Amino acid sequence: MLHRASTSSFRRLFSSGSTLAPRNATPETLDKLRALLGDRLSTGAAVRQQHGTDESYHTAPPPDAVAFVNSTEEVSKVLKICNDSKTPVIPFGAGSSLEGHISAVCGGISLDLTGMNSILNIEPENMSCRVQGGVQRLQLEAALRATGLFFPVDPGADATLGGMVATNASGTTTVRYGNMKANVLALTAVLPNGNVIRTGSKARKSSAGYDLTRLLIGSEGTLAVVTEVELRLHGVPEAQRIAVCSFPSIQQAVDTCTCIMQMGIPVARMELMDHNTIAATNKYSKLHNHVSPSLVIELNGTTEEIDHQTAMVEALIADFEVQHVEWATSTEERHELMKARHAAWYATLNMVPNSRGLSTDVCVPLSNLTQVIVDTQADLEASNLIGNIVGHVGDGNFHVMLPFLPTDYDRIRDFSDRLIERALAAGGTCTGEHGIGLGKMKYLEQEHGDAIDVMRSIKLALDPNAILNPGKLF
Amino acid sequence: MLHRASTSSFRRLFSSGSTLAPRNATPETLDKLRALLGDRLSTGAAVRQQHGTDESYHTAPPPDAVAFVNSTEEVSKVLKICNDSKTPVIPFGAGSSLEGHISAVCGGISLDLTGMNSILNIEPENMSCRVQGGVQRLQLEAALRATGLFFPVDPGADATLGGMVATNASGTTTVRYGNMKANVLALTAVLPNGNVIRTGSKARKSSAGYDLTRLLIGSEGTLAVVTEVELRLHGVPEAQRIAVCSFPSIQQAVDTCTCIMQMGIPVARMELMDHNTIAATNKYSKLHNHVSPSLVIELNGTTEEIDHQTAMVEALIADFEVQHVEWATSTEERHELMKARHAAWYATLNMVPNSRGLSTDVCVPLSNLTQVIVDTQADLEASNLIGNIVGHVGDGNFHVMLPFLPTDYDRIRDFSDRLIERALAAGGTCTGEHGIGLGKMKYLEQEHGDAIDVMRSIKLALDPNAILNPGKLF
Repeated sequence: MLHRASTSSFRRLFSSGSTLAPRNATPETLDKLRALLGDRLSTGAAVRQQHGTDESYHTAPPPDAVAFVNSTEEVSKVLKICNDSKTPVIPFGAGSSLEGHISAVCGGISLDLTGMNSILNIEPENMSCRVQGGVQRLQLEAALRATGLFFPVDPGADATLGGMVATNASGTTTVRYGNMKANVLALTAVLPNGNVIRTGSKARKSSAGYDLTRLLIGSEGTLAVVTEVELRLHGVPEAQRIAVCSFPSIQQAVDTCTCIMQMGIPVARMELMDHNTIAATNKYSKLHNHVSPSLVIELNGTTEEIDHQTAMVEALIADFEVQHVEWATSTEERHELMKARHAAWYATLNMVPNSRGLSTDVCVPLSNLTQVIVDTQADLEASNLIGNIVGHVGDGNFHVMLPFLPTDYDRIRDFSDRLIERALAAGGTCTGEHGIGLGKMKYLEQEHGDAIDVMRSIKLALDPNAILNPGKLF
Repeated sequence: MLHRASTSSFRRLFSSGSTLAPRNATPETLDKLRALLGDRLSTGAAVRQQHGTDESYHTAPPPDAVAFVNSTEEVSKVLKICNDSKTPVIPFGAGSSLEGHISAVCGGISLDLTGMNSILNIEPENMSCRVQGGVQRLQLEAALRATGLFFPVDPGADATLGGMVATNASGTTTVRYGNMKANVLALTAVLPNGNVIRTGSKARKSSAGYDLTRLLIGSEGTLAVVTEVELRLHGVPEAQRIAVCSFPSIQQAVDTCTCIMQMGIPVARMELMDHNTIAATNKYSKLHNHVSPSLVIELNGTTEEIDHQTAMVEALIADFEVQHVEWATSTEERHELMKARHAAWYATLNMVPNSRGLSTDVCVPLSNLTQVIVDTQADLEASNLIGNIVGHVGDGNFHVMLPFLPTDYDRIRDFSDRLIERALAAGGTCTGEHGIGLGKMKYLEQEHGDAIDVMRSIKLALDPNAILNPGKLF
């Protein structure tokens, strides 16, 4: 369920952000698209409104129309029509972006790919599968259940695989299995001029030419529309075990994490929740977890392997004065322990009635992680802001989830600015997994300096009419 | 030691391959470079000759001069001078390319980066280090020895890290630790116009803008000159164990490999040698290995972990009728067992006096690996060619190493063509790790179709004067 609260005051706050000239779809363009798609081109207000809203705090004018496409060929034809008339095209999947990626900041067409939701091929012997871009994560999980294989990237939301390509999604299991860049083998993509390309291959590695696969992953729909994705799969581990460990301080919790990573214990998940998050999820989900900084540690492997790893983890958390540990191995007990982590976002929003949420997303070197988190928590307190910290801390990535009302926005934004300054000073990045979208454009400049010019020149080379998702990233 | 045999007949065979117009450095350009570098600009015949030769069978005119640079700033100045005069610049590291990457096919300057060989920073707590592009692999290995960390990518040759970035190197340990794309965090690179950019960060992941790091990795020196590389390091495992397993047939050896991969046993190395390779290395290195298709399997971990994995491997190889297994755990015994694999290239060249070697490099889906290898071995025999098969088979990547005399070249080339057709039909790639260079340009077209136009447009956007390594890749 998406969080779609939108009050008129939020609308006033964020709807005037774009300085781009409007390029709305002309009646002629809409006629051509209607001739192609029939009633799969929708200009109804409710459909347009839905396609102009995501899970983020951003609000923008809705698209002029929504094109529901069913095939790569249709995507190609839609793009040709729009490229000829320089009409913006905004790819749309599950609408779970946290950075306003699907907003029609200068008008145009929302390209809804959710009709392209076929799982085309599962090849257990190659540990790979091929899906259309509109396939959703939980749908794929269900389809793979009988194969003994799984696709590991789990951003939390039930995003489409195309959307996960767009933001270079990662999440709770990335510490062990990698992000989208590590788990996508090949793509079918449509260029703005309608040309269809295939990148990569079904082989696990290649040195054949520029890596267009990884150029498109994380390009946020600004270079091409991804219609098919070849994914690398992994064997479902024989056994899984989860521990929730409570520590006296957030410093001890994060130091435990970095120590486990330095020791090379191959954890499958390593999630941090601060005491505020635990309190919020206890209330929201009626749980009874210890209200102190906690690590969720998951181990995957054979029973022997996770027994061995359990012993190593037990010794290590004792060194960091763990207060309480709860282990679970059965599926039901593991799900129970993960409830707090999964509920964190909505539990946070629930703290402030009628709020929207801003989630920061910095990722920093492991060596600086503890200090950056400790400083950030101190800043939160000094700023008198409500904010919960969760993190994929095995990768150095953490979020401060800030529920806010329009009157608080400037203070929230200032806090986020300071956090990103802190992360960049520590050698990190402004976004570990959510992408730039509308909300982090100024930080992209700050982080990459002159390299932005190279990105711009690639954008110009591939999309000279700037039709693909304009106003995002740059 | 590089293999530098070059007879006049080889020269006649390969020196006329380029149809590019010559763009030799003018006296004015050389004067400007000399003013910058002094006697670090060399136009001596021997130095030029050495910089026009690599480990491949390709022969091309040597560069007009060699510029020995000591800093990113100098690289920037050299590129500005050459860009203004449209003089080709060919980055040069250890000269260990197998695809003619360093050949001056239309003249120009060889940019020798081996003077930039400082290890700038080792950060054990972030498990990362920063090195200049001219640092060589074994130098880095030695520098890391006391830290308990290692950099895993091992292409065999003692290449420079900059060169390994250029070809997206991988090798024997990639099956466990990934290739350069998985182990490079950030780059400093100089664009053709002399602008210096930094890509990536010291964090383990990022979704901030286009992935220029992975665009430059594998770009074969055609987009920018990489001067510094931030590398991800791994903990040296507590224990390592190697098995050499001999099988009745190559089919059983490869089936064992794919089965181990599907079971998810986290092997650190998984190398195939066919019976010809074993025979050649026995002769060349005076070894006494069983002359039958063999797998080298390496396990890394704690003693408990590798004991557990050893038991799984033992059970599995028995299923595939292993004939003989030799295990080694101590460093000396492991090195002894790896001798054959390390000697394979020179042992192969040694089979035909005065020969050069062509190494194929296809990588195919694991599901098709056995069939492709079996068919390739049958083709070798039917073609009456001398060729040895080795492979990083856990990734689906294998090489046929073909020693040849000029009179055999057409038959070798036809064999290589058929092998690549076979690999592409199986869903694979023409090059798993060596890159395109001079030798695989027509295959790049075959493999990527219209996607080549995208690659070309990126090249044009970043290097409009086509000064960086012209005549390679495209």
